[in-house]
Amino acid sequence: MRLYGYWRSSASWRVRIALAWKQLPYDTVAVHLVRGGGEQRSPAHRARNPMAQLPVLELDDGSSLSQSVAILEYLEERYPTPPLLPSEPVARARVRCLTEIVNSGIQPLQNLSVLGALEQAGVDSRGWARRVIREGLCALEASAAGTAGRCLVGDAPSFADLALVPQLYNARRYGAPLEDLQLLLRVEAYVSQLPAFVAAHADRQPDAERPAVTG
Amino acid sequence: MRLYGYWRSSASWRVRIALAWKQLPYDTVAVHLVRGGGEQRSPAHRARNPMAQLPVLELDDGSSLSQSVAILEYLEERYPTPPLLPSEPVARARVRCLTEIVNSGIQPLQNLSVLGALEQAGVDSRGWARRVIREGLCALEASAAGTAGRCLVGDAPSFADLALVPQLYNARRYGAPLEDLQLLLRVEAYVSQLPAFVAAHADRQPDAERPAVTG
Repeated sequence: MRLYGYWRSSASWRVRIALAWKQLPYDTVAVHLVRGGGEQRSPAHRARNPMAQLPVLELDDGSSLSQSVAILEYLEERYPTPPLLPSEPVARARVRCLTEIVNSGIQPLQNLSVLGALEQAGVDSRGWARRVIREGLCALEASAAGTAGRCLVGDAPSFADLALVPQLYNARRYGAPLEDLQLLLRVEAYVSQLPAFVAAHADRQPDAERPAVTG
Repeated sequence: MRLYGYWRSSASWRVRIALAWKQLPYDTVAVHLVRGGGEQRSPAHRARNPMAQLPVLELDDGSSLSQSVAILEYLEERYPTPPLLPSEPVARARVRCLTEIVNSGIQPLQNLSVLGALEQAGVDSRGWARRVIREGLCALEASAAGTAGRCLVGDAPSFADLALVPQLYNARRYGAPLEDLQLLLRVEAYVSQLPAFVAAHADRQPDAERPAVTG
């Protein structure tokens, strides 16, 4: 399989964790979200994904899947062991609910493309990002109160934890306050030391960029 | 089961179609998204869903599920017949991809809460809605080109068609041009006459409001 992604794309990051968790080998193709106005907007990438977004997972037969949640569900059905969903239907629904709070409730409102459009419309895009991330993470903290163990639902990592970690990275990038979100921070500290989460971290990817040293 | 929804909430509408398709009886509780600053923001509703969004499906044991995609997956697992997902993994991934183009790629950028925040920030919110809906639907049309039959994936209704119909209703509400999206319009015309889609239509709900007659 081949993953078209970007080191700091949170949706790509979710899929990287799943591939590592299930120990599935894959090649990486970096698509730079900023350079040249965004390589994801090129005709070549639009042919893979008309939404001009990342990630895209190319399967061995050459067909392409996009939308991170659809890819996660596909990997779970095709490679069920080790799982990233619990077995009981209501627990699965809780995982998917927490995942969607991030996937449809937070991330779309703070992705680079939306922030660029807001900036053009004269909105303080960093302030906007800080606010939508903060509000969404507060709802995530409250929503997970009844289900969390070491992870967001119980003690085993699930889609929800794959969504959490990159979203917290984005929260810090935009300066959203996190210190009172004790449940989320505790889960993050636990899962972040698991090998699949270590391997998938943005800063470990071949296309990761180091900040310029200043001062 | 009990569905907390709103006639014109597109996420509630998706779940209504699924419940009707699977012939599952349920009670409706209307939560008005505008009146009094939005009843979904009340403490009572936040206790059901900390995201302060619709829909919420209350199960017979009193527990609550939120996030429409999580609810659809739950209903599919718990009541698999008649299905709303195909059986083959790649086809299921295609359905989920098209569903997420609407669920995370379009709807979150044009829901009432985001449009209100944009308006407050001085952005022309109707123009914003028109643009994000139009761009997303063009991508949906292109993404479905390889999979559509009478429906978005093959000939049987799936989650993707449940997402399509309310999104086209929103497109018309905000004046997004649709006339060149022939595939989407053709699928809409087919599914809209199926009894489950008829029963779930916004304008048929008990809380639907008629526009004031003018002129």
